[in-house]
Amino acid sequence: MDLKPTKPLSGFIELLPAQQRCFDECVRRMQNVLRTAGFEYLDLPAIERAEVLTDKDNWDEIETQMYLFQKGDTKMGLRYEGTVGLARYVAGHLNDLVFPFRATQFSKRYRGERQQRGRYREFYQMDMDIMGIDNLSENYDAEIISVIGRALDSVREFIGENCVHIGSRPYWNALFAYLGFDDAQKKNIFILIDKKDKLTDTDFADALHEALNDDNAESQILSVFTDGYEKFKNKSEQLDEAISQLTEFMNTLKSFGVKNAVIDLSITRGLAYYTGLVFEFKLLSHPELGTAAGGGRYANLTAKFSKTKIVGVGAAIGFSRMFVALLESGAIDLTQFMQPVTVAVLIMGNQNLSYACNVLNTLRDAGVSSVAYLDADKKFKNQIEYANKINAGFCVIIGDDERESQMLTVKDMCLGEQQKLTIADTIKLFQGK
Amino acid sequence: MDLKPTKPLSGFIELLPAQQRCFDECVRRMQNVLRTAGFEYLDLPAIERAEVLTDKDNWDEIETQMYLFQKGDTKMGLRYEGTVGLARYVAGHLNDLVFPFRATQFSKRYRGERQQRGRYREFYQMDMDIMGIDNLSENYDAEIISVIGRALDSVREFIGENCVHIGSRPYWNALFAYLGFDDAQKKNIFILIDKKDKLTDTDFADALHEALNDDNAESQILSVFTDGYEKFKNKSEQLDEAISQLTEFMNTLKSFGVKNAVIDLSITRGLAYYTGLVFEFKLLSHPELGTAAGGGRYANLTAKFSKTKIVGVGAAIGFSRMFVALLESGAIDLTQFMQPVTVAVLIMGNQNLSYACNVLNTLRDAGVSSVAYLDADKKFKNQIEYANKINAGFCVIIGDDERESQMLTVKDMCLGEQQKLTIADTIKLFQGK
Repeated sequence: MDLKPTKPLSGFIELLPAQQRCFDECVRRMQNVLRTAGFEYLDLPAIERAEVLTDKDNWDEIETQMYLFQKGDTKMGLRYEGTVGLARYVAGHLNDLVFPFRATQFSKRYRGERQQRGRYREFYQMDMDIMGIDNLSENYDAEIISVIGRALDSVREFIGENCVHIGSRPYWNALFAYLGFDDAQKKNIFILIDKKDKLTDTDFADALHEALNDDNAESQILSVFTDGYEKFKNKSEQLDEAISQLTEFMNTLKSFGVKNAVIDLSITRGLAYYTGLVFEFKLLSHPELGTAAGGGRYANLTAKFSKTKIVGVGAAIGFSRMFVALLESGAIDLTQFMQPVTVAVLIMGNQNLSYACNVLNTLRDAGVSSVAYLDADKKFKNQIEYANKINAGFCVIIGDDERESQMLTVKDMCLGEQQKLTIADTIKLFQGK
Repeated sequence: MDLKPTKPLSGFIELLPAQQRCFDECVRRMQNVLRTAGFEYLDLPAIERAEVLTDKDNWDEIETQMYLFQKGDTKMGLRYEGTVGLARYVAGHLNDLVFPFRATQFSKRYRGERQQRGRYREFYQMDMDIMGIDNLSENYDAEIISVIGRALDSVREFIGENCVHIGSRPYWNALFAYLGFDDAQKKNIFILIDKKDKLTDTDFADALHEALNDDNAESQILSVFTDGYEKFKNKSEQLDEAISQLTEFMNTLKSFGVKNAVIDLSITRGLAYYTGLVFEFKLLSHPELGTAAGGGRYANLTAKFSKTKIVGVGAAIGFSRMFVALLESGAIDLTQFMQPVTVAVLIMGNQNLSYACNVLNTLRDAGVSSVAYLDADKKFKNQIEYANKINAGFCVIIGDDERESQMLTVKDMCLGEQQKLTIADTIKLFQGK
């Protein structure tokens, strides 16, 4: 029989134990930040009805991007992001939840797209949303940014410092209205601005020219990036509103202690459902990664599901993508994750198994991570080799002497030193290691 | 536009926040037991190649049980259990792992079967496996049982006490050989024994009679359950080996401090890949749930993937199924999970936002879970109503007085008492709550 492939499918991530330990520690820290900030962790199904995942009727076209399948008459698919499921959940539990409702998810997402470097078909994102019924102060947008910053800071030793760029959809809408753009022009220019940071200034200007063929409008748009957002003060009521919203928001961010926040009107978050302020986090030491987290304000989250209007602000940290890229580039130091257990218990002969198991249980009860080499008839040489390979901090060696004296021989694997201790003293030695 | 359904697909689990908090706490405790026992957490892809998921060529037949789909030329599907992925991973990383290798998974599994009460299409299982190359002492089988018992005990306040039933495949193989059964008879009787606990004694005897039509063989098999496993001592070498294996194993379990272990030869774990001892955990207060966890010894985990022979012992706790059943029956008391945060910060007017955010950050830095009601222009009545609804333990009320004096008004929501405190004293009050 031919052997089957041992590699996961292309585009799927699989970590080695030490890498996984680091990943889990990062997630634990970030989730702790979210929990302390009162965000409820939601664990929603990975499979949704196809009609929930998309409004489109063109099954074939969607299928290239999503994992879709059918059971009986039901068309369904794997979620490609977290917002659709959240909207369905919130709309279905309007009376069970208290608003403003803070929610967080950390779950796998699936995209069947063509494989590219840095893009995965299965990946984790950490979502966070704050939702209100009918309205929600923009102070909450600032809170989401504050909390994302704190989450990223909690893993600073692995990813370095971050900064956040603030954009405004209302600002561009106001400027486009002031410049008299029609809907097609608005859409085209939005798309262009969204791509701006991938273009040279000349290419951007050329693309603008191609889209508009209007020297005045082109130079006005370019001037936003050179002269700053306040340049269009006193041009229209709508523009003034958008400008003062941005100015006030930057002050609110200061209240929340957010550092490294800058206005960057090239941030538009594509053509997604955002309707207000939008933002993107970047890693200062890893600009090549692009966006580490992004989000913004939405005006009607649950429109598909309910007549109740849920407004809110949401964001996601693209954690799998960031972690794997940093891992591959060697930026993450795994040293502290190389030791899975504190203690290896080595047993010299099966007659000592019962005493050794008792010691093992006592260590585990005390929270000391410990494994035993349970092939008790293997030579000491094999057993100590195992302890070395797993990089255990200490060995507890149990032979006839130790059993009879109810003591333990404890060997420090780093210093090579060995001493005889009672179980109680051994635990004292290990606790906190 | 018609509104879309807000319920998840039938067979998919969705918890409310307090239920989710309880679920997460149980998982956290069980995972901590596994981590302390040196089990490496592995997070493997949910999607595998179809050829990895199954050996069968009959795509249509498999499709009724699994979620299968195709991208380009690649047939793939969602995992229905954790062992196939583990086998692939271990075979692919033989040189990266140290054996005996302890692994644990906690991940979603998918079964597209027809919907029945207590069966889910998406559910979590917690797997644990200990694997060796070529051979592995049966002491590890006892360790797995010990660790599962400790994991279940860590959530005892929710699920009650447990016990473990030990069965033996070698025992039946030896007895079937002694009784001269052919392969078809062996298979039929295995299936029958596996179903025994769902049948009355009379129905079981009748079914045996129908399968064998041999009074002597029937009464011999029935006598295992009435006279005990040692009855067939000195009948054949193979039987003697199986009997002494079981006897020794029960002693090893005692060494590991496992209580509530009983020999129960009706446990066979179906026709799965197990080749040695098998076991099932049951909940003493909830026999209606059937098996809470189960597993056994396998002889060649990675046969599909590698010529290296990996032997081991593995088991899974069916945690979603257990948790949801206990939740639905009202057996789980959610009282302690009704309070998502310790503190609600209420802000009287936007002029106090900056001071309030500073307080909020200080609380969060100190690990005190806290939210702020950030619609700072809402009336006190609305704000305190929110604090009541989320069941916050305390309110920190921040108005002009508090800002000017740099103090806080702290209201105990349970006692109704209110006092003015410095930030430092407030944190002392909350820490540990």
